[in-house]
Amino acid sequence: MATLELVAERGYDGLTVEGVAERSGVNKTTIYRWWPSKSALLGDALVEADLLALDTPDTGSLRGDLMALVNSVVRLLTAPPMADVAVAALGAAARNPELAAGTQRFFRDRFAQETTIFEQALGRGELKPEVDPMAIVDLLAGAVWLRVVFRGLPVGEDFTEGIVDVVMGGAGRGG
Amino acid sequence: MATLELVAERGYDGLTVEGVAERSGVNKTTIYRWWPSKSALLGDALVEADLLALDTPDTGSLRGDLMALVNSVVRLLTAPPMADVAVAALGAAARNPELAAGTQRFFRDRFAQETTIFEQALGRGELKPEVDPMAIVDLLAGAVWLRVVFRGLPVGEDFTEGIVDVVMGGAGRGG
Repeated sequence: MATLELVAERGYDGLTVEGVAERSGVNKTTIYRWWPSKSALLGDALVEADLLALDTPDTGSLRGDLMALVNSVVRLLTAPPMADVAVAALGAAARNPELAAGTQRFFRDRFAQETTIFEQALGRGELKPEVDPMAIVDLLAGAVWLRVVFRGLPVGEDFTEGIVDVVMGGAGRGG
Repeated sequence: MATLELVAERGYDGLTVEGVAERSGVNKTTIYRWWPSKSALLGDALVEADLLALDTPDTGSLRGDLMALVNSVVRLLTAPPMADVAVAALGAAARNPELAAGTQRFFRDRFAQETTIFEQALGRGELKPEVDPMAIVDLLAGAVWLRVVFRGLPVGEDFTEGIVDVVMGGAGRGG
């Protein structure tokens, strides 16, 4: 938690193992025993953070589950205090190979939780079997990232329902 | 160009106005007269860079134009030397408000070019009029960003055709 707090306050460049030791009251040598670098420390902090957990929604329909997933990504990228951490850490990962390994683990871990959504939708006959579930997550989560972080535009219900409608229209069936 | 080269080589944190002056042979004072900070300098460099230009495709069909758009985003994020610049600058924008203004301008500028695709598709009756064109761009470009930068996974034709199929299925009509 100290690691994530410090990233939120100072950005990735302001994060130091010394700072984490001070904030957490854990000896610096102890930290280095488990994490060789600040990027390894941040990678693990991201994967383990309960506050960054995505709920695995179970609303009874694919559309409902995808809306819940999109809303949890919107919260992750816009709601303080975690949005500052998430955006800073993900942005830093774009140019730091060692931190990228942590980010990749974070996305793998979250996707493993999300697969339930798609297994249930297949079981209910709501999802075209030829559509790759990871591509659905990438489309929706990517659209939110682009809009919030790169365009700096607000994300309202028009936007979230619009992107889910497009994806449901292309990936869903029946309904 | 010196600005973008330096970002590619050193990352955003390694970019300095001094470095740009040295590389470009332009006096530091002259640079500061036009750009108050390195983030302003980088913002303008991004918007003006021909190498970061997206082709505005005109293949005669919405599907063809969206495939071309996706392929140009893939090139932007994976093909050296510009991919290093693009990923470093966009990642840095995630936590720097002044640089974010430049990134936002870059995305506005590119979107102004992309609207032609959607006007033509509407004219041909290929696009549902209720779908927001910007949401289509956000879905496709966001999916490529997420896959390349955050997941670190390869982007093959399976992926690019898969995301365009989903978006065409939800946003297109007729066909």
